[in-house]
Amino acid sequence: MEQTALADDEYRAAVTDLLGVLAYGELTAFVRMAVDSDMAPTLSLKAHMAQLAHAEYVQYTQLADHMRDLGIDPEAAMQPFVAPFASFHERTRPRGWLEGLVKAYVGDGIGKDFYREVASFVGPETREVMERALDDEGHDEFVVRIVRDALRTDPTASGRLALWGRRLMGEALSQAQAVAVERDAMSALLIGGGMDLAEVGRMFARLTENHQRRMTRLGLEA
Amino acid sequence: MEQTALADDEYRAAVTDLLGVLAYGELTAFVRMAVDSDMAPTLSLKAHMAQLAHAEYVQYTQLADHMRDLGIDPEAAMQPFVAPFASFHERTRPRGWLEGLVKAYVGDGIGKDFYREVASFVGPETREVMERALDDEGHDEFVVRIVRDALRTDPTASGRLALWGRRLMGEALSQAQAVAVERDAMSALLIGGGMDLAEVGRMFARLTENHQRRMTRLGLEA
Repeated sequence: MEQTALADDEYRAAVTDLLGVLAYGELTAFVRMAVDSDMAPTLSLKAHMAQLAHAEYVQYTQLADHMRDLGIDPEAAMQPFVAPFASFHERTRPRGWLEGLVKAYVGDGIGKDFYREVASFVGPETREVMERALDDEGHDEFVVRIVRDALRTDPTASGRLALWGRRLMGEALSQAQAVAVERDAMSALLIGGGMDLAEVGRMFARLTENHQRRMTRLGLEA
Repeated sequence: MEQTALADDEYRAAVTDLLGVLAYGELTAFVRMAVDSDMAPTLSLKAHMAQLAHAEYVQYTQLADHMRDLGIDPEAAMQPFVAPFASFHERTRPRGWLEGLVKAYVGDGIGKDFYREVASFVGPETREVMERALDDEGHDEFVVRIVRDALRTDPTASGRLALWGRRLMGEALSQAQAVAVERDAMSALLIGGGMDLAEVGRMFARLTENHQRRMTRLGLEA
């Protein structure tokens, strides 16, 4: 059982980090999307963006509840990730509604890829909570449609948004690397769970490929 | 039944306005609070503020669902109120975490007073949805405690926040007046429902008194 595994200090520290980074990622995604919804050109799009933000909040509360169930303090678990996320968002402030939308889609996608990658290293209850967070209720479809529509009416936007996508991925990878260096336990879980360094490299390659697939879906060059 | 009453064009127009202004008020409150949560000095306060924002979003969806049940298009109903709310929020941008918190408390309080005032003029189903929106799940307590704590550690803030509270009330009343002049059907519902002009005046007096009571609870001069 997971509770038994949690008695192991190493595993507990790793799961605490993992749930902490995921939960704080959802909480900041919630705030960023709510902020960006204010830039929406129509009321309908604003309401939709608010719904996306709300979905992130619900996932945040599920992760926080799960931590409490495991006897982990969510705030303590999230604290180490406040600075890297602040830094990521500081460096990737969207300059308009479309950039915000692309950021939500790309950021969410990278987050979900990471969920999928690490789910096999954790106990069954934690895995279930993480898998629930993978259900996006058709939100991706919404974003893809809006961005493609926007590109049809303003083709000049595509070069700028393609650059923006590369910048987002670069900043995300650079923060992820900083976090991995800092958080020994989480890295040990991945490595100890059967990943060797070559496998970690392949994981980053998969994250990048998926990102490129998402950019293509938006109609943008990756 | 309310469906019968809704066949009456005047009543329908009034209820559409009423639900529209309430729903858009919740939606913008959600966005503002999420934005302000970013200024919270600790992770714990940020999470709490996000929870307040989330509660506003849930109330917005309940009002929007209720409109759809009545055959009212929520977006069309909210549209006339986009400009007055934008103007209110534009004129009352908080310059820090505490101002944001006081604004959330004061704005929410005025909104809820207004729910209470108009609930007696609408049909039973609409009244029920509005009464559900009055349940604040202890959020007011949270804000009052934080503001009073902050005033204890920084007594100089109290003069500035007292002024801020007066400004918020002034801007809210001025926008409310603009809306009342613009939206005939809603005014007619109140007047036709038994309110004469003197009663409307007394309603504004009650809203002001309740606002003063809230400021006192925060430890501020009204």
